[in-house]
This record gives sequence, structure tokens and C-alpha cells, in this order.
Amino acid sequence: MSLSDQNNSSQSVIVDTSRSPYTRLHPAPIKAVVLEDTFWRHRRQLNREIMLPAQYGLCERTGRIANFRRAAGQLEGDFQGQYFNDSDVYKLLEAAAWALVGEDSVELKALVDRLIDVIAAAQEPDGYLNTFFTFERASQRWTNFDLHEMYCAGHLIQAAVAHYRSTGETRLLHVATRFADHICARFGPEEQGKQFGNDGHPEIEMALVELYRTTGQRKYLAQAQYLVANRGYGRVSDRPFGRFPTSYHQDHLPFHSLTRLEGHAVRAVYLNCGATDIAAERDEPELRIALDTMWDSMTSRQMYIHGGLGPRHQNEGFGPSDYELPNARAHAETCASVANAMWNWRLLLLTGQARYADVMELELYNSILSGVSLDGKGYFYQNPLSDDGHHRRQEWFGTACCPGNVSRLLSELPGYFYSTTDTGVWIHLYASNSAALTLPDNSTIELTQRTNYPWSGEISVETKTAGLYDLYLRLPGWCKAGWTVTVNQEAVGYELTDGNYLRIRREWRAHDVVQLNLPMPVERMESHPFVVENHKRVALMRGPVLYCVEGVDHPDTDVRLFEFSESDTFEPEYVSDMLNGVVVLRGTAQVRATEADWEERLYRSQESAAHANSARRAAVTAIPYYAWANREPGPMLVWLRTV
Amino acid sequence: MSLSDQNNSSQSVIVDTSRSPYTRLHPAPIKAVVLEDTFWRHRRQLNREIMLPAQYGLCERTGRIANFRRAAGQLEGDFQGQYFNDSDVYKLLEAAAWALVGEDSVELKALVDRLIDVIAAAQEPDGYLNTFFTFERASQRWTNFDLHEMYCAGHLIQAAVAHYRSTGETRLLHVATRFADHICARFGPEEQGKQFGNDGHPEIEMALVELYRTTGQRKYLAQAQYLVANRGYGRVSDRPFGRFPTSYHQDHLPFHSLTRLEGHAVRAVYLNCGATDIAAERDEPELRIALDTMWDSMTSRQMYIHGGLGPRHQNEGFGPSDYELPNARAHAETCASVANAMWNWRLLLLTGQARYADVMELELYNSILSGVSLDGKGYFYQNPLSDDGHHRRQEWFGTACCPGNVSRLLSELPGYFYSTTDTGVWIHLYASNSAALTLPDNSTIELTQRTNYPWSGEISVETKTAGLYDLYLRLPGWCKAGWTVTVNQEAVGYELTDGNYLRIRREWRAHDVVQLNLPMPVERMESHPFVVENHKRVALMRGPVLYCVEGVDHPDTDVRLFEFSESDTFEPEYVSDMLNGVVVLRGTAQVRATEADWEERLYRSQESAAHANSARRAAVTAIPYYAWANREPGPMLVWLRTV
Repeated sequence: MSLSDQNNSSQSVIVDTSRSPYTRLHPAPIKAVVLEDTFWRHRRQLNREIMLPAQYGLCERTGRIANFRRAAGQLEGDFQGQYFNDSDVYKLLEAAAWALVGEDSVELKALVDRLIDVIAAAQEPDGYLNTFFTFERASQRWTNFDLHEMYCAGHLIQAAVAHYRSTGETRLLHVATRFADHICARFGPEEQGKQFGNDGHPEIEMALVELYRTTGQRKYLAQAQYLVANRGYGRVSDRPFGRFPTSYHQDHLPFHSLTRLEGHAVRAVYLNCGATDIAAERDEPELRIALDTMWDSMTSRQMYIHGGLGPRHQNEGFGPSDYELPNARAHAETCASVANAMWNWRLLLLTGQARYADVMELELYNSILSGVSLDGKGYFYQNPLSDDGHHRRQEWFGTACCPGNVSRLLSELPGYFYSTTDTGVWIHLYASNSAALTLPDNSTIELTQRTNYPWSGEISVETKTAGLYDLYLRLPGWCKAGWTVTVNQEAVGYELTDGNYLRIRREWRAHDVVQLNLPMPVERMESHPFVVENHKRVALMRGPVLYCVEGVDHPDTDVRLFEFSESDTFEPEYVSDMLNGVVVLRGTAQVRATEADWEERLYRSQESAAHANSARRAAVTAIPYYAWANREPGPMLVWLRTV
Repeated sequence: MSLSDQNNSSQSVIVDTSRSPYTRLHPAPIKAVVLEDTFWRHRRQLNREIMLPAQYGLCERTGRIANFRRAAGQLEGDFQGQYFNDSDVYKLLEAAAWALVGEDSVELKALVDRLIDVIAAAQEPDGYLNTFFTFERASQRWTNFDLHEMYCAGHLIQAAVAHYRSTGETRLLHVATRFADHICARFGPEEQGKQFGNDGHPEIEMALVELYRTTGQRKYLAQAQYLVANRGYGRVSDRPFGRFPTSYHQDHLPFHSLTRLEGHAVRAVYLNCGATDIAAERDEPELRIALDTMWDSMTSRQMYIHGGLGPRHQNEGFGPSDYELPNARAHAETCASVANAMWNWRLLLLTGQARYADVMELELYNSILSGVSLDGKGYFYQNPLSDDGHHRRQEWFGTACCPGNVSRLLSELPGYFYSTTDTGVWIHLYASNSAALTLPDNSTIELTQRTNYPWSGEISVETKTAGLYDLYLRLPGWCKAGWTVTVNQEAVGYELTDGNYLRIRREWRAHDVVQLNLPMPVERMESHPFVVENHKRVALMRGPVLYCVEGVDHPDTDVRLFEFSESDTFEPEYVSDMLNGVVVLRGTAQVRATEADWEERLYRSQESAAHANSARRAAVTAIPYYAWANREPGPMLVWLRTV
């Protein structure tokens, strides 16, 4: 295999746009950043020590790994589980591969190598690799593009790229390129004598672009383009997939005609990741317009306040209506939030616009983080915004896409903090860390961040490297006013870019300290009036963190009875021994109705209501949304009633 | 076949409890009542002249009838459609059979006879009849109780009972009893040497009780008991049905342990119909307690204000949470509302409690009637309580259960107006009609109703028969105060029963006129605070009719922007040339926000909101909910925002 001559810095890069012609930012590798904070470092340790080993154990117990052994002829018996189960193994492997960066874990390395052994053994002589379509089902290969063969291939390729970039080893990459070659040889434009092929669950598109970036082989980019361009003609599947229309797998319109997120949410956003990757490599104005239009639609009409996507359980996605954002029945799949972070990261690299980092950050602190319990042992597939105590995290799922997705994001996390351009360093995310960032000219800028983010908006960045360069600090979208920036405690000249980064260009000395102060008032957020569920309700946010109220903190009153008036305020308070250390919001609310008032009625005439008699005040504690359902079950609300 | 000696009056009785030992009321036959009103008579004509012929045509076009011809060996080709499609033909036939009562329609009679021909021809020599499990699938008979064989048998039996009671002819009844005998011989207690059998979609239970009532053969009642008692042990299906738990088909708990409606809504309520029928025949206190408990749960925690049941699309039913009543994503299947009317009718016969008639009436005027368009040409499967214009009625569905259900209810309707006891007549529903009601002693009481119900609460009942007897007039639950009752314009002594009927016992003369006046103020209904979507919203009701606002009546303002204060009132106005003649409610509302105020944002901090500046008043017209989506598409809301 001929690998492109990746320079040292592009190893352990998550999305390697370092040589992509149509992108503004250069990514920093994971290994360039060492997190030294109290928020993420602990979670990344849980990921390595609890989550990944547990996922491995569950992949074994549920036959997902045995399926590979069976395909390799090492094991008798039937295929176990669902037709897309290979992907869970690949995603676990990708997460474990990225987790190896900067970690000297013998156990993790052994886990990775064991997985690669079984995967490599299961590959067919012609490069094909899918353990479901083996033996008795071999004749059904590629007969139904809804059965996730491309999807699983995509996850294999992503795992292989991660493994190569993390370790420099090529064994899994070799497996993945053989399968990719098999796909490229078989599927493509019919005028080239190839077979029509497509992907019922987008995923392989972004994987192929990365494979191109890793190997330098342009055919992989061309294949990704083919797969994106080849949609919208109702040809992805001959048969309807259950009750769903062709928009379920984004096959209802050509990509450049899409104007909103449609269908299955994870599919839609993975597809957009791939299209954005293509737009980094090629001059594709139509793709860019479609991506921009969909992003505007998403953020102004389709996204939950916690970043969740896909309101409907039925199709794990969107219906035709904008503003459809039910709270209790939110699907808001953890994977869709991970996908959205991935998509916004790609858009950020393309543009240097902070609004994309805002969405990433929203996902990270809210609907991705809610996807895993504080002890790393349970996962949410759905992330509702209200509940009566039934929704609890589970160790695993029959469709187990979410655990691996949370893990790979945590493994990759340091790689999302910084980017570079020719003239300096961009800071996207805030948490204490040390970084050594290599610019395109191979010079390196070292710096450290110190902050108690997200509990505090006070951030100090200390330069370790002297010289004339730019520092770009993201001004988060949630910060509307009152922010200040100093260098060595003195006012400093800066430019606020149209992408909402504070650009400070100067002759830096070692140990210069940039102090960015972002005020973090408690914000009472309200919803567009077309979001029918949120009428006369407010959600509390502080910085990037969304809050909720949970029954366990309010033994005397059902949280659904609280009513807040405009004069009710909340005060933040850091509580170290609660939920692993969180800032809670303390306030009071009015309680008028009681359940007894309603006399077991569901509806009543307003005239018959005799309320306001029993009004009393009650203390209220709001906790970060991501931390709910970690204690005893009870009702939870994000959107609080106002009087 | 030995038929029980039905007396003349029990012919055309829908649910024949006339000799059931544990029931309070005797049903009146359909033919005893001639509707002479302007509300229902027209709809029943549409049913006979438009709906039933169209459904027949669609059953032909979609291969549903061809499936029977194929099973009879009269036609080559494959089975067409879904495995439960036979039931649509049976339900059409039942609706057409009941529609023959009092109608001398040659076309309808011919339609009925043609259907009976193909059905009878398709029956196997051993009595089995299901066109899906024929030829290549004959070996799969009774291997999966989720595949609706019992369900289809139940609809066949109901159609046969209807046809016999309507026409006196026994041909279809003979087919149905042969199939019922086949089922009774094969499935039953294992200690009797029979095979375990059950019903993934309850329906046959109530059908078998009626077959017992029709034929006098006690084994059918025993079989219904077996099928109800035999649930709750997770044995209905060996394999999980899709992603659904055993509660999907009410197989998670024994019937007597059920405390709320669970799983698929239509299944749950059909099962309750069957259990209520059993409770009419046998002393079953445990069944009664379970039924009462479920009814309380339904009306106090699980039912939409329009009578709809089953909030979730995913399982067409209930989740584990009470108060889960999303408006836009309400599933609220038309069939579930029909089923609920059927269940409440059975409970009413059992108890003589008006609250059951209240639920029936709520279903009739709201979520059943919304199931069909004003022209009789389109149907709703789901009945949401808010929409943005996407939800429209369709001519037909792949799963076409709802059209036939609306039709059979309209065909049966006159049979729901009255009951009798030994001492007199019970009036449940109000609409102009003439009735001749036979009491158990074979005496007949004739009377007429004159009213403009549901637009007016003024009802006059004129006796045609002299004598000492009781008249029971239902006092609707929606009428809280101010009602009056007179006889010949004079005050009259009456008793208000604990079941909320006004009982007037006297020596009646011919042409006595009872005048019942039920005030119909416009009620602003509010929801229990746990119904999260309806916070600070009101729904308008007048009498039994629920109202909504629809975009087409408000070209200048999106109806979702209206805000109502407590001082905003509504005045009813009858408009004869709108929506086939309706009382609309006229009022005004405040409009503050405009879409432009939101600057394409989905969420904003309250502090950043500069509202109240642009407040203006707008005229509002609310229409009956059942009549929405009959004009051009646009947003619709039942639950209106209040300030």
C-alpha cells in the first residue's frame, strides 16, 4: 500500500484537512493536547478503564465478536444479532485506537490487537467483509442497500484510519483498503461498466474521504462523491423500508436540492459529514449551499435546545414539520448528537466560524454527555427533555450504536480543542490543558490553558512560545455581553473576526497570559412560539450548560408543579460532593396546584378551578441536564412552567 | 345450526345483552330508531352512498376481495397486501349489513351478497378461513398468534352476527360458526387435550360472546373466557413483535391484574370490550374491578380531550408514562376511538351510568367524526390535536382498518340512542328521531325527540304511548349547572340517579312533552399540570363538541401566535353555509410576537426579547375539531395559548 507521506503532525488527526484545498483551518492532532482539567480528564479515564472494556465484554457476550470468528471459520453456529452488528465492533475499535494516543495502556493495546486479529481473519479473499452476509447469506451480498453493508464498511475504514493515525501500524488499514478497493471496483457509474450502488445508511462517504487523505488515492474521494451524488432518485432501496418513505435514507432529493434535515437523523447528519468532507477537497458550491441551508434549518427550526436531533421515535428522525420538538417523546439519539458534533467540526475546519464550534460545544456538554452515566456504566439511546422517571440508562442495547459513539468522541476529544492556520493558533474549546501545536511551516507553538470551564467563564491562556503569531480565541455564542480580554492584566488590541473569534496578533513572549473573562449569568431561555410544547416555559442555561430540575432534589413537590415568575432568580453554587462536582442553580418557585386539587381529573373547565388559594413557595435546585437520571428515578423537566 | 330463539326485538341489536344476567340495561335494536335530524342523518346517507361503495371499490382494487377468490380457487396469482387484509372485507361487510336495517337499497344488498359469496367460497372444508394462510402458506396456519388469524376470525363472526340480525339470513352465520367451531375444537385448555392458542390482536373475544348470544351455544362464551383468561403469561407470541414488549398485545399481565391501558391502543380496548361482554354473562368481580380501574386510569390520565387514545405512533398505543399526550404527534387512531365507543357502550349496558355515555358521545362528535371528511371521501388514521398543515385525510391506507370502523359505527348509530329496563326507556344520545322501544314484557313505548343537538342543548321528547313508565334522560357530564326539565312546560318531579340520569316516572299521556334544557356555554378547558404540552393553554368546548382554530379562517395571522386572556370571550354563531352547517365560536385574541421578531432563532434569552411592542388584536373563529382539514391546508390548534 502506498501511503501518502503524512508528516508527523497529521498523525492522530481526527479529520485530516491539513492538505485540503477548500478549508480554512488545519486540524491539530490528538497527541498535541494533554487535558489537565477536572471535567473531561476524569471522563476520558472512565472511557478507557470502564466504558471500552465493558463494551468489549458486551461485544463478546452478545456474539458480535463471535460473528467474526464464525466468518473466519474459527467457530460453528449461527450469526448472532442484527445485520449491522459488525459496526459496533468497528466503532469500539476506533474508539480504542484513538484512546491509545498518549496512553501507554497494555490492556487497551491488547484489546485493539485482538479485535484486529478477528476482523482480518474474517475478510474474504476478494476483500469483502461483512459477517452477516457469510455462508448461507453470501448470495445476498449487495442485494439490498438498506442492509448496512456500506455502513459497516465505513466504520471499518474509520477504525482503520484511526488505528493507523494513532499507532502508525498498517495492518487494519490494509484490511480496510482491500474492502474499499472491492467496493470501488464494483460500484460506480454505469457508463464505466460498474454496478449501481448506494448506501442506505450514510457513513462510508466521510470514511472514504479520510481514506483518500490517508492513502493519497484519489479513487476513494471519487467513490465518496459518487455515493453522495447518486442519491435522490429513489434507487437506494427497491423495497420500502418498513413504513418509511425514501426521505428516511435521504433518497428523496438530490443532495444539492436538500433544504432541511429529513428522515433518519443519524443518516442525515452522517451524510452531511461526508458532503462537507468532499467540499473540503473540491470546489463544490452547490454542496456548500445545500449544507448551509440545512444548517440554518437545523439551528432555527429543527434542533432541541440541548443539541438533540430527531424528534420522532418512529423513524429515529424528522417528520415533515418544522418546530416539531416534543420534550418527553424526544428521540434525540445520542448518536445524532455525536454526528452533529462531527458535522460541525468539519464545517468549522472549512470556515473558521465560531457558530459551528458553538453547536459542537452544545452537543458535548449536553446531549452527548447525557448519553453516558456519571459512572460510565450506562447509556442513553434517547435523550428526552422531560420524563416521569421511566427513562433510565442501560448497559447496552440490541441496537448498540450509541455507546461506541460516545466512546470514540471522548477518545478523540483533545483533537477538537485547537486548529492552526499559517499565522497562528485557534482555540475552540476551553478546559485546562497543555498544547504543542505545529503550524503548516512546521514551527510549533506551545501554550497552556487554565480554567474551571464550564463552571466558570474565566480562562487564562499562557504562551510558552515566543514570536509573532496570532491567537484566535472563540467568543462563544452563548456570551452576549460583558466579556473582557487582557494580556498580562492589561488591555490589549484585538480584532473580532466575522466568525466570532477574538484575534490577538502580537510579538508574544513566553509566559504571556491572556485572560478571557466570559460572564456566565443564568439565562432564562424561551422558545419560538411554534414550538407548541414550550409555551410559557423557560429553560435555564449557564454558559454552555443546560439545566433541568429532577425529582430527587425535591422530595416535597413534584417538579412539574413549579411555576416561575419573572422575579424568580437563580444563583449558581458549586457543590463538590454532588454528581461528581457540579454548579447547581438555586432558586425558589411558586406551587399552586397540587395533584389533589385535580381530583383525579385530566381536564376541567377553568371556571371550576379554585386555585391560587394554596399558593406556597418552594426551594428549587436545578442540575446540569447531562447529570440527570444518575440518582433515584423521578420526574425531570428542562422546560419549566412560568406563571 | 340451532339458533337461539331471538325474539323480534333483538334482531338488529348491536350488542345483545337482552338476556345477559349481569347487565342493567336492555339494548334497543337499530330498527327501533329512525333518525330525523340534520346532523347524523346526512352522514349516514354519505356512509351508504359514498363511503361503503368506495370502500368496496378499494377492497377490489387492492386485491382484498381477490384474495378470497384466489383462496376459493377462482383466481390465479399471489396473495395481495398484508396478512390482516381479510379483516377489512369483513368490517366493510359488517358495516354494510347494519346499514341495511331500515333501508331498502338494492345496491347495498347486492354488495353484501357478493361479499358473502366470495367469503363462503374461500372457506376450507375443515372450517378454517384466512386467505393469507392458503396454498403456499397453509402449513404456517396457527404458528404465530401475532399474525391476526383470530383477529380476522373475530371480524368474520361480527359481520356474520350483524348480517343475521339485520336480515335474518343464516348463510354467513353458518360460515362463521364453522370457523368458530374449528377454533373451539382446536384451541383450549391443555388439560382438555387442546392446543394452547391465543390472539395477538384481541377482537374475537367480543365476537364469540355475541356468537354465543346469537346461537345459544355456550362453548363460544367459554372460548372467549379462555382467550381472555389465557393472557399475561408472555405466551401470545414466541418471538418479539418488532421492538415491542409483551404489553404491546396485553400479554404482560393477567387480565385481572391490569390497572391501566397498555400497549397497542386498539388491541387494549377491543380486549376490554370482550372482557366487558364476558362480565355481562358471568359473575366476574375480578374482571369488573380491572375494567373499572382501567377506565379510571384512561379518563384521568390517558385520554385526549377529544376522546383519542394512544399517544405514540411507534406502537400505535401507550407508553409507560401517564399524562403522555403530545398534540401534534398524537397517534389517536380513529379505530381506537371507535373501540372506546364500543367499550363504553358495553359498560353503559352493564351499569346504567351516564359517564360511559359521556365518553361515547365525546368519541362520536370528535375523534371518530374527525376520522372522515365532510364529503365522505377521505379518512384520518391519526387524529392529532395540532398540526402545521401536513396532516390530510386519505382515500385509503395500506393498513385500512379505520374506514370500515367509521362506517360500521355510522351504520349502527341508531342502536346506541336508547335502552330499556323493565320499567321504561333510557335516552342516552340526543338527536331528532322517532323511536318505538320494546320493553322486556313486550310492551312498546313510542316517542319522538326534537332537538338541534349538538348545536343546541334544548331537547324535547314527546311521548306517543300512554301509561305508567319511567323515562330516563341522560344528564351529560359536560353540563355542570343550570339545566332544567319540564313536562308540558311545567315543573316535574324527578330523581337524579347516581348514574346521572334524570328519571321521570309518571302516568304518561300521548303527546306529553318533556323539555330538557342543557345550557351550552363556551367552556375554556385546562389540562392537568402533568400534561406538559398544555401548560397555559385552553381548549374550547361547547356541549360535547371540541373546537379548534384553523389557518384557513385566519389569513392574516398564524393561529399559533394567538394569545388569549381571561377576559377574551367567545360567542357561538350558527353558520349554515360553512362546513355543512356548524356553530362556530367568534372571539378575539392578542397577537404579540411575529415570526420576524424571532429573527430565524429557535431559542432566545428572555432578556433579549423585546415583545409587547407590537401587540394587536385579531379576530378569531374556532370551528368544531371534527371539521378541520376539510378546506385548504394550514396550521391547526386545539390547545390555544393564553397570556
